[in-house]
Amino acid sequence: MASFRTVKGFRDFFPEECAMRNYIFKTWRSVARGYGFVEYEAPVVESTDLYRKKSGDEITSQLFCFLDKADREISLRPEVTPSLARMATTRHRDFKKPMKWFQIGSCFRYEEPQEGRSREFIQFNADILGDASAGSDAELIALSIDVMLAFGIKGEDFAIRLSNRELWTQYLDGKNVPAEHAATFLQIVDKIERAKPEDTANKLAAIGLSLEDVRAFMAAADENHPAFAALRADLTARGLWSYVRIDASIVRGLAYYTGTVFEVFDLKHGLRAVAGGGRYDKLCALMSDGSVDMPAAGFAMGDVVLGILLSKTPGAQFGITDYLNAQCGVDAYVVIADEPQRAHALAAVQALRSAGVRVDYSMAAQKVGKQFQAAENQKARFAIVFGAEYPEVQIKNLVSREQTMVSAGALVGTVVEALKLPVVGPLLA
Amino acid sequence: MASFRTVKGFRDFFPEECAMRNYIFKTWRSVARGYGFVEYEAPVVESTDLYRKKSGDEITSQLFCFLDKADREISLRPEVTPSLARMATTRHRDFKKPMKWFQIGSCFRYEEPQEGRSREFIQFNADILGDASAGSDAELIALSIDVMLAFGIKGEDFAIRLSNRELWTQYLDGKNVPAEHAATFLQIVDKIERAKPEDTANKLAAIGLSLEDVRAFMAAADENHPAFAALRADLTARGLWSYVRIDASIVRGLAYYTGTVFEVFDLKHGLRAVAGGGRYDKLCALMSDGSVDMPAAGFAMGDVVLGILLSKTPGAQFGITDYLNAQCGVDAYVVIADEPQRAHALAAVQALRSAGVRVDYSMAAQKVGKQFQAAENQKARFAIVFGAEYPEVQIKNLVSREQTMVSAGALVGTVVEALKLPVVGPLLA
Repeated sequence: MASFRTVKGFRDFFPEECAMRNYIFKTWRSVARGYGFVEYEAPVVESTDLYRKKSGDEITSQLFCFLDKADREISLRPEVTPSLARMATTRHRDFKKPMKWFQIGSCFRYEEPQEGRSREFIQFNADILGDASAGSDAELIALSIDVMLAFGIKGEDFAIRLSNRELWTQYLDGKNVPAEHAATFLQIVDKIERAKPEDTANKLAAIGLSLEDVRAFMAAADENHPAFAALRADLTARGLWSYVRIDASIVRGLAYYTGTVFEVFDLKHGLRAVAGGGRYDKLCALMSDGSVDMPAAGFAMGDVVLGILLSKTPGAQFGITDYLNAQCGVDAYVVIADEPQRAHALAAVQALRSAGVRVDYSMAAQKVGKQFQAAENQKARFAIVFGAEYPEVQIKNLVSREQTMVSAGALVGTVVEALKLPVVGPLLA
Repeated sequence: MASFRTVKGFRDFFPEECAMRNYIFKTWRSVARGYGFVEYEAPVVESTDLYRKKSGDEITSQLFCFLDKADREISLRPEVTPSLARMATTRHRDFKKPMKWFQIGSCFRYEEPQEGRSREFIQFNADILGDASAGSDAELIALSIDVMLAFGIKGEDFAIRLSNRELWTQYLDGKNVPAEHAATFLQIVDKIERAKPEDTANKLAAIGLSLEDVRAFMAAADENHPAFAALRADLTARGLWSYVRIDASIVRGLAYYTGTVFEVFDLKHGLRAVAGGGRYDKLCALMSDGSVDMPAAGFAMGDVVLGILLSKTPGAQFGITDYLNAQCGVDAYVVIADEPQRAHALAAVQALRSAGVRVDYSMAAQKVGKQFQAAENQKARFAIVFGAEYPEVQIKNLVSREQTMVSAGALVGTVVEALKLPVVGPLLA
């Protein structure tokens, strides 16, 4: 048997990649909590019917869906919104409205892997349930902007593409297009910037519409359109309207949006959307068979396109310092220069860790030079040397190269105090 | 269609449960990092062959294993160690030894759900690769003890059951029992405390052994046995040996352990093991078809039994304060007492959040009393009232009930400074 590999479309997170992932998680959490959102999590596996109910039978072609050993139809979740609707409608009486909830976790889609798309990906979901106001749409758009800014992605590097599904509902009403053509029409609009104009014109003609007229309507739907007045006033007050570009071609693929729809996209690299969402006022009623009717809006941001954008954006915060200092380094390395002192050294390791100091040491007997090398590799600020001088112990500052002797009894207090001082010199050079 | 439920054996994490989960994650991470471990993550889905290679064909009866749309045999991971062995052997040249790695994530087993066992559960895995010393076994046991202590579980509430597989290898050698009976024998020992003595005696007789002799050997394997000498010296030096109880009936179900084996178990409630692990020096060679031979040891702790133990242990840290303050509360609530001031209020919300203050407010127009009620619900320390007095703004301390007026321009600075002061009065009363 050849050596094992990851399954197609799945990813390993080696320590450096995991630290980057944790940096992304930390940023998502921190901004969402700043907005008063609370975190929840749903199961990775749900009944396949949950996704059929929301998206129709066709969805199963993109799902990791299976029969389990008891012939239950189950799926790896392709998104979290159906689980959220299930959870929120089941226990809606237990929570004050509006519910501002966020979630971070893996989702799975059976799609061909390519740049910006893997079969397992991590999503950040933020949703507001129980509030139908344009103010909550604005709160979500503001959150998506502040998340981008928190990653160090500047205003010249990204924008919000904004539209409203009602624009097109009203347009189709005005043209007397039957409601059963609405989904087809939205698919045409969704592809209008990429498809050949003659193909688009033919498809529109089949439902009694002309490309020229649709284009003219799109051009007229600018930021002065009354559909955007409340959002514009709100985001202008926050100083965030400059990030927004009206784009009526944004419909979002999912059929369930009912009002505001938006995407976060980069301005320089032509990547897929970094995030997308909108208002979906009918989903809770659909998922609860009408028993709980609750307005809702939200968006999702994936880690894959975001990671690519971070890697391409000079000045974006990579969390590399976090990685080296907080996630993969230690504060002190205990060097056992004289093996008979190991028991004393272990007692000190335990006491230092109990005092909150991150400590490593060599678990097996090892040459002193190798131990100092390990201390450097681990970015330790101090080496603490247990040698024949015990109960005197040497503390060596690996940044400034200063060294002092302390008695073993004073070691923990001395190290804890020393770690409070600013680092002198290039620790991570 | 009836309303949707979770799939059998899967769990929702509503905000309070998610905060508890996050508290568990934070504690695992914090103690592991204090020990110099670095975090990694593996895919949730692996090829089924990975698990067959480690555990044999029988393992598939306990797996969520499927064919994907391209007829690949894939499984939801039942544990992370096979993925770790795959990752570590694939890129072992890129990492200094010993590798001290930890991981936190969901695993899945197709087993009957019962107390302490669900089909999706979260594991904390800590492993040391590339070090064959008893010192690294001790480091892992010490880590498992310090994790329990960090949760506020005291020495009277838990202990480490310790054994060594080599005890039994030597025992069987001494009795000239053929090697092919070793697995059967270990299964008998594993159940020796629960099975009927006559059944055990019959099974042992079938491989030429007597129950009396096995019991006598177990009784003699105490803490003075040379197999435990190095571990005992190490953990005694750390002051942790008092947590350890030698128990030769501990073999751990998994066939791949080669030396030290241990379990963390509670002393008062008769729960399943909270954690278990040991040394598995041959796994890397097995998983890489002999190309990378690397000693290894590790343990896993699940969230389910731990959660039950935390709920049953008076004095254990539940993270409830964390939950209320850091995860579900805000620092300030902006009250819009005069709707025409909304734009000014939104500007202040944005400025406060940008300064790191967690802020909520009512996104839709709302009565003032309801807004103050929301502020209390969210445990806000301050209400900031935008009324007709604008540009004067009222700051109301919801704990001490003091109130002051500030000009809008001084608001952010005043709130940031006020949040640095200690809370006066029962914020969470």
